[in-house]
Amino acid sequence: MRAVIASEPGGPEVLEISELPDPTPAPGEVVVDVVATAVNRADTLQRRGFYPPPPGASDVLGLECSGTVSAVGDEVSGWSVGDPVCALLAGGGYATKVSVPAGQLMPVPEGVDLAVASALPEVACTVWSNVFMVAGLRAEETLLVHGGAGGIGTMAIQLAHALGARVVTTAGSAEKLELCRSLGADVVVNYREQDFVEEVRRATDGRGADVILDNMGASYLDRNLDALATEGRLVVIGMQGGAKGELDLGKLLRKRGAVVATSLRARPVEEKAAICAAVVEHIWPLVADGSVKPVVHTTLPLERVADAHRLMEESGHTGKILLTTGA
Amino acid sequence: MRAVIASEPGGPEVLEISELPDPTPAPGEVVVDVVATAVNRADTLQRRGFYPPPPGASDVLGLECSGTVSAVGDEVSGWSVGDPVCALLAGGGYATKVSVPAGQLMPVPEGVDLAVASALPEVACTVWSNVFMVAGLRAEETLLVHGGAGGIGTMAIQLAHALGARVVTTAGSAEKLELCRSLGADVVVNYREQDFVEEVRRATDGRGADVILDNMGASYLDRNLDALATEGRLVVIGMQGGAKGELDLGKLLRKRGAVVATSLRARPVEEKAAICAAVVEHIWPLVADGSVKPVVHTTLPLERVADAHRLMEESGHTGKILLTTGA
Repeated sequence: MRAVIASEPGGPEVLEISELPDPTPAPGEVVVDVVATAVNRADTLQRRGFYPPPPGASDVLGLECSGTVSAVGDEVSGWSVGDPVCALLAGGGYATKVSVPAGQLMPVPEGVDLAVASALPEVACTVWSNVFMVAGLRAEETLLVHGGAGGIGTMAIQLAHALGARVVTTAGSAEKLELCRSLGADVVVNYREQDFVEEVRRATDGRGADVILDNMGASYLDRNLDALATEGRLVVIGMQGGAKGELDLGKLLRKRGAVVATSLRARPVEEKAAICAAVVEHIWPLVADGSVKPVVHTTLPLERVADAHRLMEESGHTGKILLTTGA
Repeated sequence: MRAVIASEPGGPEVLEISELPDPTPAPGEVVVDVVATAVNRADTLQRRGFYPPPPGASDVLGLECSGTVSAVGDEVSGWSVGDPVCALLAGGGYATKVSVPAGQLMPVPEGVDLAVASALPEVACTVWSNVFMVAGLRAEETLLVHGGAGGIGTMAIQLAHALGARVVTTAGSAEKLELCRSLGADVVVNYREQDFVEEVRRATDGRGADVILDNMGASYLDRNLDALATEGRLVVIGMQGGAKGELDLGKLLRKRGAVVATSLRARPVEEKAAICAAVVEHIWPLVADGSVKPVVHTTLPLERVADAHRLMEESGHTGKILLTTGA
């Protein structure tokens, strides 16, 4: 099979397509012939040497894919050769074939193109597990989403809106804010020009956001606490603004708040399976009825993986960047 | 009625007993003739001017009491004049009478002396709401309790042990550690001589503590993260080591951990009522059967309130310090 690895830590130019042996499915696993994969910010960190794959995971990049089942391992039921699927991966998606634990396979939601389905697993699983399972966002509550125009942001806005929550989101350009609004954001904040703490307070009669989904980490920590409502939950899933920041526990205590930091990739296989099952139950019907749409910025052939990483790192994109294998 | 207020912010000497008008019960409230109250660290902070009562609460100190119902307001059912009770208060316990929202009254657990029952409301409600409701400690999990020999610590050790969790606790003297062990702590750590991170790791085959109940705040923040297990929950309920500390979100993310800070006093009346109901359901039977005992360091008359505060601030005590009204 063809597969993308980083020959050494570095810029997009270190990404190269190699010929590797085809995978065979271990017990409990299924091999997918990959039609498309998608670029995640974590892939760019892994390329730079900052986010090594968890023990046992492939060196091949790629945390999600879509395609067709081509082999089914022992102890797997419910999937057959030829099934169109998408999948959450611990690695290995930037390839023409990948072997996946069966619990991380999901059907392609009704009405979604097979290649486009590769845009869904990471964002759907990340948003469902963090915003709903960990932070317990409820209808009528307010969600603040940072980076609303990215892959995770566009999913978080649509899903929270579809489930009856109020959504405030930040982004860095008028065009991105317009996209966020079209996806269901009630209040949009240009972080280059406006103070998100003030805007969240204004939008909530001073109460603050019940849940904050944050990709900035340290640089936003204190202001996120300021923007949090009493009994609010701050969920940090990225650290684009650094890892170490001052936490004012007095402020957190007065709000009876929680700071949670999580990632999907290192979770045990059983937890990933539970998340995928919940996503199929709760999100796929909303995708099928059109209330939640995959948002794709562009689709490139796998050979242009370095360009795809450059695009991601320039942060000019809105939604997901896909790579197709030509299969 | 007689009641203790702080004439101005300061040391124990500012505490004085005043004559104030007797309370009458507002709708939904019950007046208790106080037999005993107990000293909490928060009372010493309030005396020093650092912990003002929430809006609407009494200026009289005291967050808990026991006694006898002497008047029942409108819209209250289930309580009658003469009932022996204990109560969680937003303030007003250091007095001969106090008016309490009916949801914060609890019966005196079977077999417990009426004055000694004043030792229970704060610690039982604090431990149940934080360790079980917020942090969701389960049987077989490991709880790390800092300050195990104090009022909250002695309750946390006994309750977690009775419910099948493993308990590691810290304290500052051999005598205190011996008390902790007698209450059910599996592992005791002298924080003056041992590194609690290392001892927790040793006690859990390197896994760490699933839940940490912390009264130190900033000074322990980073080491508490080190001692936390994957998917562990750190609950900060005191800040004796300061409020502002550096939080390493990368460390928290790798553990998929949560940092929560809470207090009981500022919660809405309905939440306090739900906590008290849960305490009566889950803890009172364990008190009645002897698996959880109120731990009382000493009992002084209300007139010696200044001495009681001195004792608390010297931190030499084990368990609760009670004040009796002579009623």
